[in-house]
Amino acid sequence: MGPATRYLHIDKPFSLYRGEKLPELRLAWESWGSLNAARSNAILIFTGLSPGAHAASSEADPEPGWWEDMIGPGKPIDTRRYFVICVNSLGSCKGSTGPASINQETGKPWRLSFPELAIEDIARATRLVIEHLEIEQLHGVIGPSMGGLTAMAWLKLYPKATRHVALISTACSATPFAIAIRSLQREAIVTDRNFRNGRYSEDDWPEVGMRLARKLGMITYRSAEEWRLRFGRKRQDYFPATLFGMRFEVESYLETHARKFVGQFDPCSYLYLSRAMDMFNACDSDESLKSLFERSFDGHALVIGVDSDILFPLFQQRDLASALEAAGCEVSYHALPSIQGHDAFLVDFDRFGPPIREWLA
Amino acid sequence: MGPATRYLHIDKPFSLYRGEKLPELRLAWESWGSLNAARSNAILIFTGLSPGAHAASSEADPEPGWWEDMIGPGKPIDTRRYFVICVNSLGSCKGSTGPASINQETGKPWRLSFPELAIEDIARATRLVIEHLEIEQLHGVIGPSMGGLTAMAWLKLYPKATRHVALISTACSATPFAIAIRSLQREAIVTDRNFRNGRYSEDDWPEVGMRLARKLGMITYRSAEEWRLRFGRKRQDYFPATLFGMRFEVESYLETHARKFVGQFDPCSYLYLSRAMDMFNACDSDESLKSLFERSFDGHALVIGVDSDILFPLFQQRDLASALEAAGCEVSYHALPSIQGHDAFLVDFDRFGPPIREWLA
Repeated sequence: MGPATRYLHIDKPFSLYRGEKLPELRLAWESWGSLNAARSNAILIFTGLSPGAHAASSEADPEPGWWEDMIGPGKPIDTRRYFVICVNSLGSCKGSTGPASINQETGKPWRLSFPELAIEDIARATRLVIEHLEIEQLHGVIGPSMGGLTAMAWLKLYPKATRHVALISTACSATPFAIAIRSLQREAIVTDRNFRNGRYSEDDWPEVGMRLARKLGMITYRSAEEWRLRFGRKRQDYFPATLFGMRFEVESYLETHARKFVGQFDPCSYLYLSRAMDMFNACDSDESLKSLFERSFDGHALVIGVDSDILFPLFQQRDLASALEAAGCEVSYHALPSIQGHDAFLVDFDRFGPPIREWLA
Repeated sequence: MGPATRYLHIDKPFSLYRGEKLPELRLAWESWGSLNAARSNAILIFTGLSPGAHAASSEADPEPGWWEDMIGPGKPIDTRRYFVICVNSLGSCKGSTGPASINQETGKPWRLSFPELAIEDIARATRLVIEHLEIEQLHGVIGPSMGGLTAMAWLKLYPKATRHVALISTACSATPFAIAIRSLQREAIVTDRNFRNGRYSEDDWPEVGMRLARKLGMITYRSAEEWRLRFGRKRQDYFPATLFGMRFEVESYLETHARKFVGQFDPCSYLYLSRAMDMFNACDSDESLKSLFERSFDGHALVIGVDSDILFPLFQQRDLASALEAAGCEVSYHALPSIQGHDAFLVDFDRFGPPIREWLA
């Protein structure tokens, strides 16, 4: 966590959505720009599974953030106009309370003794930061990927608590394909010999499982077409060419990404957030998506999808846009022809910047 | 291997495509129908990665084969007219020589000491069965999936050795997406604690790795759309619902398939065949696909692809059909709207039967 990170400590129990309790809470967050006197210009960004609160650089922390090209003075999310907040998700390992945190009652990391986490809990914990800032209504919430699920949980739990909403490469619930991918990622982690039912140590990290999980993630985050153009059948040049080792560039690309990820993300945090994504359903009560949007939301909705996304395929964003329209909301729907798949929102700023800028104009 | 399996033993060294040698060879094969007097009605079926030679039932072995609905009297590949042969691929573990076979020189299974295998070797070993049957020219070769790679290796190595060819859900080489998937499957196997660099025993099988590899296979063999219609977000009802265990039907479906596969297929065979698929390229010399087809093939080509196949996507079959056309061959190209993905050729007989029947008419 960088020098711009702030923390909110809540020294009383936090009741979780599925019934259990956390004895206390810590939330890591960052902000950019200034809150106006009316406290009406705040934009809250919910993150995907792995990013922390450091979405963009600032004077206090010049390190580029995960959405650096999107947030800043004159950028699509313009910090000269808006006060932008990003809170590290509850359950993550980047400063907020999660399975990697110390359970004060035992003095040891929670790991698998952490109670079951729901996407709704991430929304509810984030709400505490917004309350702490004495913001009654947000100008907008922006949720890409898992962040979009959290944005929908927010709408469900706090009707009219935001004026506008942007749902990016997300869905009201996961497809069985996405569930299958995440199920395999979890299986790779829990079957790693070093996982030891959550009792891994710094020296015996379940690296093999985390590497496989990350590679499988990368396979579904990008697109087959991008890789075809980028790698083709090119051979790799710097990894050993053993019989079952890596011979193709696409293999060393995955390995490079996996090595970066291992050690940077806690295996149990990964498991909890991954399962929470599978379990989330914006319309899991008797409420339809249309009626959810009707009661929760009046402003301008932005919905963006990418035609090469296999994890949150385009029909899911189309469904969101339809439900928003049926609910009588103003909707801008963009089906982007990007070959960068689910990850396009992190890299394809030429395509994602303009609709976000316009939505905030 | 069932009671209809026949074996061809070759008691002399077999030189492999990448330079090494096998001291001897055993090939398991089956046939259906009768070879005519002119020995001109033979159809050779190359298999995908995991099936053995038992493609269909027979009087000698009433057990249904992997292409039961396709082969038999009155079926699309009509055994009243054709003599149909299926040879277990070299390198597989279903009766033919492979990494799971005993190396006569050591008295132990080859495992990782097996020399590197190429798709061309499968074609060349299969050729020995055809020579043994004194067949000079086949009426046709049929290759689905990996079998299509072998069919192309056959064309490359033995020009004019078949009159007709059917290339089904296959390609002239693998995409980086397919390579990435297979690379992960191999990584799951070799990192299993029981793999022990190929020295696994019957009691300590690398089950975890094989299960992951099979599940990842299933994810790419079927389609997201099929699963969406079939499973949706239905919960499973017969597997334990532990925190990171299986809660969704799609997860128990994968688990059921994986359990069946484990113990039925040798991990090293899987590794060798998987890598051979990645390495194969029908046009890896200076020869183009067009010129390969020009010199190798005169008859009627059938090319079938499925729009939901992500492992061998439709553009690859379109490329094959274009090259065949450019080479002046008669081509029937079918882009089938099946939601059953790469596996459609194994299950969607309503769609696959008619074009194959027509091609053989």
